[in-house]
Amino acid sequence: MARFVTTEKLNELFDWLENLGLDVLYIRDSEDHRDVNLKYLTGHPEDASLFIDVQNRQTVLIPWDYQLSNNYSEVDQVINIMEYDGGLIPATFETLKSIVNSNPKIGVPKSIPYFYVRTIIDQIPNAEIIYNPQEIDTKLDQLRSTKSPHEISLLKKSVSISNQLVEEMEELMNRHSPNNIETEVDLAIFVENRMRELGAFGTGFETLVASSKRSWQIHTYPRADQLSMYRPGLALIDFGVNAEGLTSDVTLPFIIGKMNNKMKVIVETVEHAHNEAIDNLREVNFLHEVAEVAMRIIESKKFKMPHGLGHGIGLTVHDSPDLRKKPTHEILLKNWTDTRLEEGMVFTIEPGIYEKDVGGFRLENDVIITSKGPQVITNSHPIFIDL
Amino acid sequence: MARFVTTEKLNELFDWLENLGLDVLYIRDSEDHRDVNLKYLTGHPEDASLFIDVQNRQTVLIPWDYQLSNNYSEVDQVINIMEYDGGLIPATFETLKSIVNSNPKIGVPKSIPYFYVRTIIDQIPNAEIIYNPQEIDTKLDQLRSTKSPHEISLLKKSVSISNQLVEEMEELMNRHSPNNIETEVDLAIFVENRMRELGAFGTGFETLVASSKRSWQIHTYPRADQLSMYRPGLALIDFGVNAEGLTSDVTLPFIIGKMNNKMKVIVETVEHAHNEAIDNLREVNFLHEVAEVAMRIIESKKFKMPHGLGHGIGLTVHDSPDLRKKPTHEILLKNWTDTRLEEGMVFTIEPGIYEKDVGGFRLENDVIITSKGPQVITNSHPIFIDL
Repeated sequence: MARFVTTEKLNELFDWLENLGLDVLYIRDSEDHRDVNLKYLTGHPEDASLFIDVQNRQTVLIPWDYQLSNNYSEVDQVINIMEYDGGLIPATFETLKSIVNSNPKIGVPKSIPYFYVRTIIDQIPNAEIIYNPQEIDTKLDQLRSTKSPHEISLLKKSVSISNQLVEEMEELMNRHSPNNIETEVDLAIFVENRMRELGAFGTGFETLVASSKRSWQIHTYPRADQLSMYRPGLALIDFGVNAEGLTSDVTLPFIIGKMNNKMKVIVETVEHAHNEAIDNLREVNFLHEVAEVAMRIIESKKFKMPHGLGHGIGLTVHDSPDLRKKPTHEILLKNWTDTRLEEGMVFTIEPGIYEKDVGGFRLENDVIITSKGPQVITNSHPIFIDL
Repeated sequence: MARFVTTEKLNELFDWLENLGLDVLYIRDSEDHRDVNLKYLTGHPEDASLFIDVQNRQTVLIPWDYQLSNNYSEVDQVINIMEYDGGLIPATFETLKSIVNSNPKIGVPKSIPYFYVRTIIDQIPNAEIIYNPQEIDTKLDQLRSTKSPHEISLLKKSVSISNQLVEEMEELMNRHSPNNIETEVDLAIFVENRMRELGAFGTGFETLVASSKRSWQIHTYPRADQLSMYRPGLALIDFGVNAEGLTSDVTLPFIIGKMNNKMKVIVETVEHAHNEAIDNLREVNFLHEVAEVAMRIIESKKFKMPHGLGHGIGLTVHDSPDLRKKPTHEILLKNWTDTRLEEGMVFTIEPGIYEKDVGGFRLENDVIITSKGPQVITNSHPIFIDL
């Protein structure tokens, strides 16, 4: 295995950090704090410290599991924590001390656990901590937001399995029989097993399935309470396939039985917002504009969308870029940077409306920005089930 | 649903924070930063800010998904972020400003993302950030480390399903036929589906399965490369059942075919360390002593154990307390507190040895500390498969 960042982009990062005046950038991923930049920059899946050592222009990995790094990582140096008493934390800070000069400038991403910042200050009293989300986090997000041809080829394996699952679910849900899918849990298990049979490594995130009884809610993990998928109304499944590291993300909405007028307006409005957003990707300069187009359509019908329009997909299901309206609150504006639409971006478009009386409806597809414009690579569409 | 902490313990926390001189304790859980204290103190599953408002003696929850809090949370006040432009972050800091006086002392757990610390400083310039892991984190860990009768009754549902799975796996693996389990993926899928059939919500963590080809490694997620479980040598499955919020955690080791001498020593040594550790729970005062007993047994045979002896289980698979040897490195010692063995603790005992030439062997069971001493509640044991 190997890192996902291209050599060109990694060099760009070194140059850019050097211009910013940093000596080291410290990335940390652990069980209670996930940072996708670790996997992106090294290939190492999880649980490690990473130093981007600008002065010596090298990447130094301190993994919790040394063996794992032999299989996955592409870095200049790997530290074996078994050589330090007590493991990863001593190994991390001993290594940091060994690579920096006096008065080092050490950059950190905005969500690094506070413990590490305090430990740097404690261990290297002359260190200057560089916290600058609008520079550092924006740069890392920007590197990950456009995918290389290699990343796109890996993603397409996930997408191909996802597309087959959509076809099979449509067929299965229409062929309602006692031996087929009945409950939310049945549908989740079908998707999760079938994707592995088709060659996936596993799910890209926890599958959400909501029958019409609770589709108006947003966090709908399939529960053991066995709600029927065939209750009339609006239902959905939101699932991701991880075939080779990169995940797809699709929501398939079901209309079970006859729609009342409110449901019809919801379904039409979401489809309209979905299609207009994708069309607008040919015209807009900045991603927040696309989100604003979709939100205006939804708000013109007196509904609200309680989440953003979409998000990048990649090594994590919520990758950069983010597709949401430009904020107005000062805390958010302070951390905001306009993101320009760029070739190579891959993201979801997923407008949704959720109403307690009639249920929730979300239509979600994945889009790649190619030199010829947006290309929808998944096949989700409203599925009408007669009762 | 309701919070998991008892009213008695919550009052103890308020009193204790007041004695420490804190005005507010800030807990945050988000997709890239999990903090089990959110779920423990409120019942809310994820993605929220929580203020333990000591001055007004109230808990204030700011959830990303307001509906979810109606179903799950037990707090004094819930803030609807839809009433704040842009969501959770503005709602969090507007709320914080509204509940504190001038010069507030705001406590944070050690792993809170640095962004929140900086935003408090930015929004409330007179705030004093109280970072004190040996007090704050130790106290939270200590509260969670002993389980109430209610928590134990929830956990026992997971354990009961886990025990049935162990019996069924032993039977299935012995009945090797082409229609049964053949590969690592087959075994993972069997366990994950079967636990749901038996009434579990889902897995407590990602299932690890390792055939003898790679059991010497530690992070062995079942891969799509379909390695046979029947390759001679040492194999294992490490799985967790989450039936009602609390997770079990068991590793079942398989000895496939005949053992060579080195394998025999490994199996005997691990079993000896496992049994001695459990026996020692009757005698020791501090948990690090138990870990040291097990490590001495393993090291006396010239092996190393590359992980701790065990960990608490609960709302997260790696809950407090931690069972590991007392560190010697100063960074670790600075954050170390001896943990006394207490009634109501529930944790794993899981010694393991991993050797590249013959494979890895780990035996893991869950133990409750009762008034009458340690009680092993799971049924893992070495399973010998004839070829």
